[in-house]
Amino acid sequence: MKNARLIIADSEHDADMLYASGMFVPDPFIAIELDGAWHGLFSPLEVDRARKASRFAHIHLDSDWRVIAENKGWSGLAGCAAAFLDAGGAREIRVPASFPLLHADRLRSWGFTVSASPDGFFPDRAIKSETEIGHLAQAERLTRQSMQQGEHYLARCSIGDDGILRDPDSGKKVKSDDVRRVIETFLIGKGAMPAHTIVACGREGADPHNTGSGYIRAGELIIIDIFPRVLTTGYWGDMTRTYVKGKASTAQKKMYQAVREGQAIGLSMVAAGVDGSAIHQAITDHFHAAGFTTGIVKGKQTGFFHGTGHGVGLQIHEAPRISIRSDILQAGQAVTVEPGLYYPGVGGVRLEDLVVVRDGGCDNLTRYKCTLEIP
Amino acid sequence: MKNARLIIADSEHDADMLYASGMFVPDPFIAIELDGAWHGLFSPLEVDRARKASRFAHIHLDSDWRVIAENKGWSGLAGCAAAFLDAGGAREIRVPASFPLLHADRLRSWGFTVSASPDGFFPDRAIKSETEIGHLAQAERLTRQSMQQGEHYLARCSIGDDGILRDPDSGKKVKSDDVRRVIETFLIGKGAMPAHTIVACGREGADPHNTGSGYIRAGELIIIDIFPRVLTTGYWGDMTRTYVKGKASTAQKKMYQAVREGQAIGLSMVAAGVDGSAIHQAITDHFHAAGFTTGIVKGKQTGFFHGTGHGVGLQIHEAPRISIRSDILQAGQAVTVEPGLYYPGVGGVRLEDLVVVRDGGCDNLTRYKCTLEIP
Repeated sequence: MKNARLIIADSEHDADMLYASGMFVPDPFIAIELDGAWHGLFSPLEVDRARKASRFAHIHLDSDWRVIAENKGWSGLAGCAAAFLDAGGAREIRVPASFPLLHADRLRSWGFTVSASPDGFFPDRAIKSETEIGHLAQAERLTRQSMQQGEHYLARCSIGDDGILRDPDSGKKVKSDDVRRVIETFLIGKGAMPAHTIVACGREGADPHNTGSGYIRAGELIIIDIFPRVLTTGYWGDMTRTYVKGKASTAQKKMYQAVREGQAIGLSMVAAGVDGSAIHQAITDHFHAAGFTTGIVKGKQTGFFHGTGHGVGLQIHEAPRISIRSDILQAGQAVTVEPGLYYPGVGGVRLEDLVVVRDGGCDNLTRYKCTLEIP
Repeated sequence: MKNARLIIADSEHDADMLYASGMFVPDPFIAIELDGAWHGLFSPLEVDRARKASRFAHIHLDSDWRVIAENKGWSGLAGCAAAFLDAGGAREIRVPASFPLLHADRLRSWGFTVSASPDGFFPDRAIKSETEIGHLAQAERLTRQSMQQGEHYLARCSIGDDGILRDPDSGKKVKSDDVRRVIETFLIGKGAMPAHTIVACGREGADPHNTGSGYIRAGELIIIDIFPRVLTTGYWGDMTRTYVKGKASTAQKKMYQAVREGQAIGLSMVAAGVDGSAIHQAITDHFHAAGFTTGIVKGKQTGFFHGTGHGVGLQIHEAPRISIRSDILQAGQAVTVEPGLYYPGVGGVRLEDLVVVRDGGCDNLTRYKCTLEIP
């Protein structure tokens, strides 16, 4: 009996399916690897487009297999896949960890052995080809340009007597949403889809998952974290900068300086063969030595309490990780380096670049200055 | 032994998790129903936000349960969920059809019985409350306004000697992307995230899944299908109109008229207790009577070869369906009515409104005119 691999998913949200198919399909469909060749099974609505645009070695009409499946009493997409696998003589099937349980249980009830891959289904996805690095560089270039748009907007804003920024055109009080709109409108215009862009000021910035909703005030830390997906390629950009409109306080400058140094340490260490956990530890040690401790204060996490970085590709978060867990970096991986410090009283500082791991170092795809104060 | 229900998913993409939690969380987390009450288990990064924003009856820190899980040799999010379920005395667990197989197999190996719901995990999701209908109406209002933006842009374009439209400002040839940008920039500015907006002209419009990439030409059918998601609520809008810039041909007018009549038949039939398949059949019959046949011609599908409509809510495609399969409509469901005709030589026509099923009829949330010709 032959082994096979199977994915049933759409390729808008499932990066493995996008990697296997090379095309965006909004509804779930079937990809099967048999004897080393990948087959795509498409609905009549999609099959023409798949013949032109997909990277499958073979394209099939799923309705042909549905008829065969129904004769055996096998229904749905799982039934269709089962009919194809059965005809190919495959009974042992490997699927991604995220494979839908209902499909798996049906396949099992029809006599197939189905096992979920505990690690990545396509380990190669972490190692980017130069073409993929080109796609990531394009995404990061748009991300950087949108950051500049946000920065220029903040520069154009005036400061009201209440400390809240004022829109340069309307004179209205500026909220996170206004800055976000400038950034996201630019990205959309360039064919990139922003996700939940973070523009978080003051106490909102002290919570790294708060996307920000309040007023933007002078003299407070403003974290801007932008991570759009380029629609044509599916690759993501990811970068973060932190600003203060007007003058930063001594405490803010000290915190910013510590994060800059932490990021510089991280960037200097990233290279093929280096353990991500050593990088994370070096940054953590630096923060500690600079007097920035990490821990729970009054029930809130403070200090540096997230990982240093994550892989970026067809998913915004993918392998590898730079964190407390051991993970040896490999040449061709694309990772963020994004240390941050968060204290409820002061706010948050995070600086994030996207780099490609190389032998002996890394290539920075972000290549953008870090400026704290916006006049 | 008690029964329990379990979801492990993020709530950006998983509508059941968004329904259970009432808040957007980008990374997978745990929701458990025990003794009729829903519990949310959150990471330290998310727990504060969850306490404020989620609709769970009880909020827990997942790291507390992770420690207990690790003592039993149970790892990951599945281990965390297992520890919580075990402490609650639950061993029989119901999960959504899409539940990740790897988690399910781990839970089973630890002695839990896990069964996937073959139908919707929250059947109530199809029946919208008046609050939810308000969210859908808001989404559809933005969708309609963005359609007007696209229409106004096409009206402002001139027609080149080659028949290709020219941008009113730059004088450049107009492509699908230019119209899409006008629509999507508007939506982003209003806090709604467009998906793959369709602007498909001529032969591209004859393939209902082609999002469109070519030039926009006068005298050709232009299908515009817009389906954005409102970022604050998670509800989607969905509408389609078909236009011709300049004068439509007799064949185009006849096809458009047939689709208008088909849609009118559909809209007049939607009501609680009506079988969706009867609506679909009535429209199909109308097309046939008007001389518009459906079938494969030269290897291409032609005519009316998709369903009449689908439910819309926290997912763009959800229960119920108006199609060849029997599905009795219920009051409070929100469904599209979107017949279309497609012929490779002529192009495509589709008209789509979003309506709420009521006793004895439906409320149209789209409320927008159908105009074929744009001068």
